[in-house]
Amino acid sequence: MKLGDLSEAQLVSHFRESFPRGDRTIIGIGDDCAQVAAPEGSFIVTTDVMVEDQHFHLSWSTGYEVGARVAAQNLADIDAMGGRPSALVASVVAPRDMDADVFLDVVRGLGDRAREAGAGVVGGDLSAGEKLVISITAFGYCPGPVVRRDGARPGDVIAVSGTLGYSYAGLDLLEGGHVDPSARGVEQLGELAPFVDTYRAPSPPLGSGVAAAAVGAQAMMDLSDGPATDAARIAKASGVVIEFDRPAIEQEAWRLQTPARICQADPVWWVLQGGEEHGMIAAFPPDVALPEGFRAIGRARSCESGEDPCAMFDGEVLRGAWDHFQADSVD
Amino acid sequence: MKLGDLSEAQLVSHFRESFPRGDRTIIGIGDDCAQVAAPEGSFIVTTDVMVEDQHFHLSWSTGYEVGARVAAQNLADIDAMGGRPSALVASVVAPRDMDADVFLDVVRGLGDRAREAGAGVVGGDLSAGEKLVISITAFGYCPGPVVRRDGARPGDVIAVSGTLGYSYAGLDLLEGGHVDPSARGVEQLGELAPFVDTYRAPSPPLGSGVAAAAVGAQAMMDLSDGPATDAARIAKASGVVIEFDRPAIEQEAWRLQTPARICQADPVWWVLQGGEEHGMIAAFPPDVALPEGFRAIGRARSCESGEDPCAMFDGEVLRGAWDHFQADSVD
Repeated sequence: MKLGDLSEAQLVSHFRESFPRGDRTIIGIGDDCAQVAAPEGSFIVTTDVMVEDQHFHLSWSTGYEVGARVAAQNLADIDAMGGRPSALVASVVAPRDMDADVFLDVVRGLGDRAREAGAGVVGGDLSAGEKLVISITAFGYCPGPVVRRDGARPGDVIAVSGTLGYSYAGLDLLEGGHVDPSARGVEQLGELAPFVDTYRAPSPPLGSGVAAAAVGAQAMMDLSDGPATDAARIAKASGVVIEFDRPAIEQEAWRLQTPARICQADPVWWVLQGGEEHGMIAAFPPDVALPEGFRAIGRARSCESGEDPCAMFDGEVLRGAWDHFQADSVD
Repeated sequence: MKLGDLSEAQLVSHFRESFPRGDRTIIGIGDDCAQVAAPEGSFIVTTDVMVEDQHFHLSWSTGYEVGARVAAQNLADIDAMGGRPSALVASVVAPRDMDADVFLDVVRGLGDRAREAGAGVVGGDLSAGEKLVISITAFGYCPGPVVRRDGARPGDVIAVSGTLGYSYAGLDLLEGGHVDPSARGVEQLGELAPFVDTYRAPSPPLGSGVAAAAVGAQAMMDLSDGPATDAARIAKASGVVIEFDRPAIEQEAWRLQTPARICQADPVWWVLQGGEEHGMIAAFPPDVALPEGFRAIGRARSCESGEDPCAMFDGEVLRGAWDHFQADSVD
């Protein structure tokens, strides 16, 4: 069955079945607006869009994985402020001739990830179009201090949670034709499963951002575009230089040795430039015990005379690899 | 210059120039999340997506008009709850070979409409894609009671604010080749200007929803899909029948006589089925003096035995014309 065979009303009814209501939802799906409780007197909000054949391929990922991925990246943005998610809304553009089961699988993946995180899905919009486009806006609240990206201070320890480079390795395995795109899980993919599965639907350690905020993280982001790019953003916003520690980066890279051998790729590059994994990168005061799951990968220091804030590795200023409007954009 | 010639950083810098910050913005553009004040302890939220060649054509509308239109339809959803807008976020997918000036015009149209309404633009996301897709999520707060769509009671007066059928007339004028797609305003379009301009960028009477809530409107929506469809939604949610009043509808249709003659169209059809204008349709208790700009166009009554809730005109149950997933979808 094609999506165009379903009425908008039938689709909305599937949405209602798949989407959690959420504890903070006062008015849910079905009116001009939803209403969400914000007893703190404010809310935090983030939005992300994912486009077929730009951010994912339906020949490589199931609908469920695509839905889970877009949910995860928005939920990670909430976590990156030290926040907990309350609700999200979804706008979806889909071709009329799209397989209805694949589409409903997207909806289920999105709904399940929201449910696991304790967020309601409180609204959405739906339109026909040539490619699948999913735009999510997520809301949350901060139980403690709101952690921005501009608070890193000289001497801070830079630490990460979640995997590094797994998604990039998975993408290269798929792009290079080194794995069967229809293979899934450890049974079919063996030791390559964690990489390919992370590319298809990252499982960031949601809640690690809240834990980091609780112990006093001074600056934080989720790893959307990779440590090189995201550390540079923290550095620029905070007016510091962030220097990655080679042994720590090599330890991360060591976990990627099998796919790196297969793809003949540099695993250090994957670690530094690999995005779309959505763990946290945070700056902690030097005396803080890192929360569970965090590994120190560098330090913040003052800019020397004439030096601009930046992220560095091995004495070189790192440049980000990703710009969605350049020809070499993330695929 | 093409969009692909600009870096994402340059684009974000244009966004910052064009977008208002908003009085309720605590953290604006530039971090993983924005933070918006909600001293009422809750917020309302709506989302809408507009797709090139589904909802608009760049050969018919300027970028500015497209941006203004998508802002207007979201701001109207806030108004339709009796709410005032606080902030919005925008996700935009655009082709790399899109003219950069047209794109920046979209951004300006969006920013100007938000500014006029008192809302900040606090975040967004940007991706390359084949067609222009704009997804807006808008937030607001209700100074008085939140008006849902399920509160219409038998005896209520059904009244509307804003124009009816103007956008549909404008679309038919453009689709039928009756006007030069490059013509704009009264000077070039004469008496057809209000219709064509409303299609390109509706100017709903924002604030009329808040005014309706203040005098006790019991159910309300903005006119997204036209009186037939939207009244039926209020009727179904409220468990009543809404009967349109022929003389009142004909009075609305009378304003459309010139384009109707040119297009050889039925102006009553335009009035009942014309959407995308985003005025309000609301149910008022019979003793209420309607706020300025509202015209009574019908009444709510109880369902008779065996009768389902619906909207009726001339003794016939009205069916909505629009479903974005059917072949005869709105163009």
